Amino acid sequence: MADYDPGNIFAKILRGEIPSHRVYEDDAVIAFMDVMPQGKGHTLVVPKAQSRNLLDADTATLGPLFIGVQKLAQAVKKAFGADGVTILQFNEPASGQTVYHLHVHVIPRFEGVPLKPHSGQMEKPEVLAENAGKIRAALAG
Amino acid sequence: MADYDPGNIFAKILRGEIPSHRVYEDDAVIAFMDVMPQGKGHTLVVPKAQSRNLLDADTATLGPLFIGVQKLAQAVKKAFGADGVTILQFNEPASGQTVYHLHVHVIPRFEGVPLKPHSGQMEKPEVLAENAGKIRAALAG
Repeated sequence: MADYDPGNIFAKILRGEIPSHRVYEDDAVIAFMDVMPQGKGHTLVVPKAQSRNLLDADTATLGPLFIGVQKLAQAVKKAFGADGVTILQFNEPASGQTVYHLHVHVIPRFEGVPLKPHSGQMEKPEVLAENAGKIRAALAG
Repeated sequence: MADYDPGNIFAKILRGEIPSHRVYEDDAVIAFMDVMPQGKGHTLVVPKAQSRNLLDADTATLGPLFIGVQKLAQAVKKAFGADGVTILQFNEPASGQTVYHLHVHVIPRFEGVPLKPHSGQMEKPEVLAENAGKIRAALAG
């Protein structure tokens, strides 16, 4: 497995070098909107600690990361009145991983609505901004 | 969301009331072969603590659960010489959840081999037993 490359796009988002529709941050993670959502409200939870994916992550990263994932799962379900939530996490290209900083997909699900393909179509920024606002509101109360 | 029902099949496996091809156990989790694998070596990691899914899980459950998931992801990659690993976790029927005790899917991935459908065809017990043996060997060494 290749080493961690700090030039990846999520590392740049973590360093604030490129923008994102951020919805949450704590000591261990940030969460922001996936720009190519597989469903309405598709959010990514990304640990601040550096690893290529789950396979090389420090075990100390995992508790705080998945507490963040749970928090976002609860928030997106509330924000969009979703019927369920799908959690996806891809390791290496054979699994569909396209950005090499560990990240977890949190996708609201609605009865009868299949997931769109991974790394599909780019969503409009105003839609991402509106959805991010709904998630922030759900997290706030 | 419905309450936890201790009559679910994974609770019965945890209590030893029905058999499974178990590959791993520690204080917090057990892991066993999915009987309807989406790919060769598809394994489930299940916390001993009771929750319906991720949405109602105690946060204290999550670190030990995902440390177990990481351990199994590393083990199945080694056991089957996989190119990658996909982690899936479904919450509520709209997401594809069919057993209502929190569980995480750990699926070895191979270049060019798509995932089979969730809850698809039952695998032969001798194949599950052979794959379980490979994962146990990978965990041991």
